[in-house]
Amino acid sequence: MSAETIPIQKDIQSQRRAEAEAWRRSLTARGILCVNMISSPGAGKTSLLQAMARHWSGRPKMAVLVGDIATDRDAQRLAPLVPVRQLTTGGACHLELPLVRNGWDQLDQDGLEFLFIENIGNLVCPASHDLGEHLRVVVLSVTEGDDKPGKYPKAFRTSQACVINKIDLLPYVPFSLSAVTEDAHLVRSDLPVMAVSALNGDGIAAWCGFLVAQRQQLLRDANLDR
Amino acid sequence: MSAETIPIQKDIQSQRRAEAEAWRRSLTARGILCVNMISSPGAGKTSLLQAMARHWSGRPKMAVLVGDIATDRDAQRLAPLVPVRQLTTGGACHLELPLVRNGWDQLDQDGLEFLFIENIGNLVCPASHDLGEHLRVVVLSVTEGDDKPGKYPKAFRTSQACVINKIDLLPYVPFSLSAVTEDAHLVRSDLPVMAVSALNGDGIAAWCGFLVAQRQQLLRDANLDR
Repeated sequence: MSAETIPIQKDIQSQRRAEAEAWRRSLTARGILCVNMISSPGAGKTSLLQAMARHWSGRPKMAVLVGDIATDRDAQRLAPLVPVRQLTTGGACHLELPLVRNGWDQLDQDGLEFLFIENIGNLVCPASHDLGEHLRVVVLSVTEGDDKPGKYPKAFRTSQACVINKIDLLPYVPFSLSAVTEDAHLVRSDLPVMAVSALNGDGIAAWCGFLVAQRQQLLRDANLDR
Repeated sequence: MSAETIPIQKDIQSQRRAEAEAWRRSLTARGILCVNMISSPGAGKTSLLQAMARHWSGRPKMAVLVGDIATDRDAQRLAPLVPVRQLTTGGACHLELPLVRNGWDQLDQDGLEFLFIENIGNLVCPASHDLGEHLRVVVLSVTEGDDKPGKYPKAFRTSQACVINKIDLLPYVPFSLSAVTEDAHLVRSDLPVMAVSALNGDGIAAWCGFLVAQRQQLLRDANLDR
């Protein structure tokens, strides 16, 4: 009998990557830009989505899959504004694709242009999981400190955009927008950094414009211009 | 040949629990209260430790083991005030006992009365790991929102104290101290909740007094009164 090494871990990972890639392609084919939002607890992902939904008021059409460890509080906040499904992990520290797909199957997908996935509040673990998104966005609030990109590098290195939230609090906290941008660019030199206040709406129009441009680019790249 | 089930996971966990328990007992025997501080990134654990070190100014004697995924920024902030060792996990989302013990071995332990472990900024994963602490403290800042205890229940259920930090920002954020206390007590009805501002020092004396009382109780329970 010959000894044999069975690379189980590698096979699982490559299978997961393939599943995420296949789902990303199917969303692309339907003209839907999928955005995976990661941040610390309380950085304001839900408030940001509320502000975007109010800004867009139904056009373009967006839907949200919102992840939490426990409770459906975030889904309840979003439900009056946009189609939403709660994904509850029951303890797990990040979302994985099968749970996301399950929520997706329960959404009204007709005419959808943007799908937002609000990940678990955790600046570490979600950075290691591809959910089939086109765009990963790391949200950081000014109250967390401008030293976070270097301290949580994977979240910033694997994201394609960074939103600095709660800029209405800048007068009251020790936080420098230029310092955080510099720190983020040490981790990923081409990371777009945009400052917003989900509370008073500052910067929301520019952020939404960025997302619309990202979707237009996706459609052009896929020859789906329409 | 008979089939046999080997409960590997269970054995590892029970071994880890025994190691943590043995270390806790050895710290108790030396009269050292060990405090494991967990929170989201940027809730202010390091600032709180700085405020405590300034308040105590060397008496009682404290030391800090500070965990981070990358960089030694927090240790650099604390080094002018207290003995400190940086524990860098290189990506891992929580501290485990062997790394803590390694840092401990490099500390000047003579006459120490308090050992603080500043965990990785993560309100999820650290709640599942016993580091041999006598007291687990969950730190929540007012900017994170008063709905967090129910959304991250394990961090609050497994802690013996809760510090609400950044109360200097209360005039500017939608946060109710009574609502967060009520939510925390739904998760753990006997959880002491204390409000502080590490920035301006409000509540720091009371919080430090609470810790001194906790250590005195530990000494009494171990018949180490002195």
